[in-house]
Amino acid sequence: MTTKEATYTYALRLGDDALILGHRLSELCSRGPILEEDLALTNISLDMIGRAQALLKYAADTENNGNTEDDIAYRRAENHYYNHLLVEQPNGDFAHTIARQLLISVFEYLFYTELEKSRDENLSAIAKKVTKEVKYHMQHAIDWTIRLGDGTNESHKRMQTAINDMWMYSGELFEMDEVDQYLFREGVAVDLIPLKAHWQNRIQTVLTKATLVTPEDGYMQTGSKKGVHSENLGHILSEMQYLQRSYPDAKW
Amino acid sequence: MTTKEATYTYALRLGDDALILGHRLSELCSRGPILEEDLALTNISLDMIGRAQALLKYAADTENNGNTEDDIAYRRAENHYYNHLLVEQPNGDFAHTIARQLLISVFEYLFYTELEKSRDENLSAIAKKVTKEVKYHMQHAIDWTIRLGDGTNESHKRMQTAINDMWMYSGELFEMDEVDQYLFREGVAVDLIPLKAHWQNRIQTVLTKATLVTPEDGYMQTGSKKGVHSENLGHILSEMQYLQRSYPDAKW
Repeated sequence: MTTKEATYTYALRLGDDALILGHRLSELCSRGPILEEDLALTNISLDMIGRAQALLKYAADTENNGNTEDDIAYRRAENHYYNHLLVEQPNGDFAHTIARQLLISVFEYLFYTELEKSRDENLSAIAKKVTKEVKYHMQHAIDWTIRLGDGTNESHKRMQTAINDMWMYSGELFEMDEVDQYLFREGVAVDLIPLKAHWQNRIQTVLTKATLVTPEDGYMQTGSKKGVHSENLGHILSEMQYLQRSYPDAKW
Repeated sequence: MTTKEATYTYALRLGDDALILGHRLSELCSRGPILEEDLALTNISLDMIGRAQALLKYAADTENNGNTEDDIAYRRAENHYYNHLLVEQPNGDFAHTIARQLLISVFEYLFYTELEKSRDENLSAIAKKVTKEVKYHMQHAIDWTIRLGDGTNESHKRMQTAINDMWMYSGELFEMDEVDQYLFREGVAVDLIPLKAHWQNRIQTVLTKATLVTPEDGYMQTGSKKGVHSENLGHILSEMQYLQRSYPDAKW
């Protein structure tokens, strides 16, 4: 493995998380029932698409075989997408959307804060921008988790169910494979092992404040770093790639 | 008719245009095939939802019977929505989306520039913000119309078809009913009659530059000011109101 190859994969994985989550959130645009919340989720979705564009462009530049970030975003087969399983999970009811946002945004805040120190100047520059954005996403998710968890009986029950349902997708966030390890030794990638304790602390603090129970770490889903996905990704891609497939190579 | 009643209806109509078009554009979020275009359309959608929020809040404040802008946005029956038929038309292929954007954004730019002079301070303040945003929407639509019209044979053909298909919804933009006339006499509303010639000039200039033919004014669809809509609105509302109907009065 060369640094170039590893960096390509690393940028692709981060870009795919942003691309797929951005798509999931965009499914909620204008779905109400609160205009203010429409604006918030659409804004988060917009940040995600912008982040995907920056990271996939860096992947394309690194690969340097003539593909653009758009080719990379829209033209791969399902088993060549490397987003975490968590971000491809369906929006479900609003509590599920918020639970997904809570688990991923606390992770991303900690992750990108570390990535700012990367020796790779491009990744470091992207990380600095992302950290600012994701701080807001995290606050949004925390506020809603507390509001719903510490709300009515019904909202409490739904929020707890949502956290329980999403939990088994959280273990994967901290897996390090050979790409992570290689780039960590090069001073490029983030060490995910110490991140896990920070993440658990923060999540537990929020859940306690929300009068919710932190689930035990039981069976955890895994596979995304090898391109193995739940059936959800297929549905997302068939929507995302619809235009590209209908008009292959349309130059307009 | 009192000024208050007329102002409520006027704000509602303008808010509905933004709400419904914002929804239509949000359907395209993350549908590719170009990330840059995703960002552009999502940004325009976001402007629209923000505008809807401001105008429907003003309508709610004017009505002053306890309804919020969210109640107004999501809880009316279909025949109480007053958006123009143009904005509820389906996205179709990308050329149709752009044709709809061209016809409406040139209209809105001219309209809101005039509305800045309204004696109603709330409408004038909203108009000043909208004019800045819609100038960008208009430029985006003009650029794409020229790029597609003066592009390949295929893109030219599609763009001409799209303009032809959308044309019959443009006449309604300039209709004045008793609400418009009453508020125009009060110095609140925009006179739509002189606007038509300006609009036609601008549109013709763009279409000529795009090597496209400006359609003749033939049969024009009408009805929205009376709440009469094409079947498209029903589909939009069933999506928009889904959450509200599934969890009536959910307080979370």
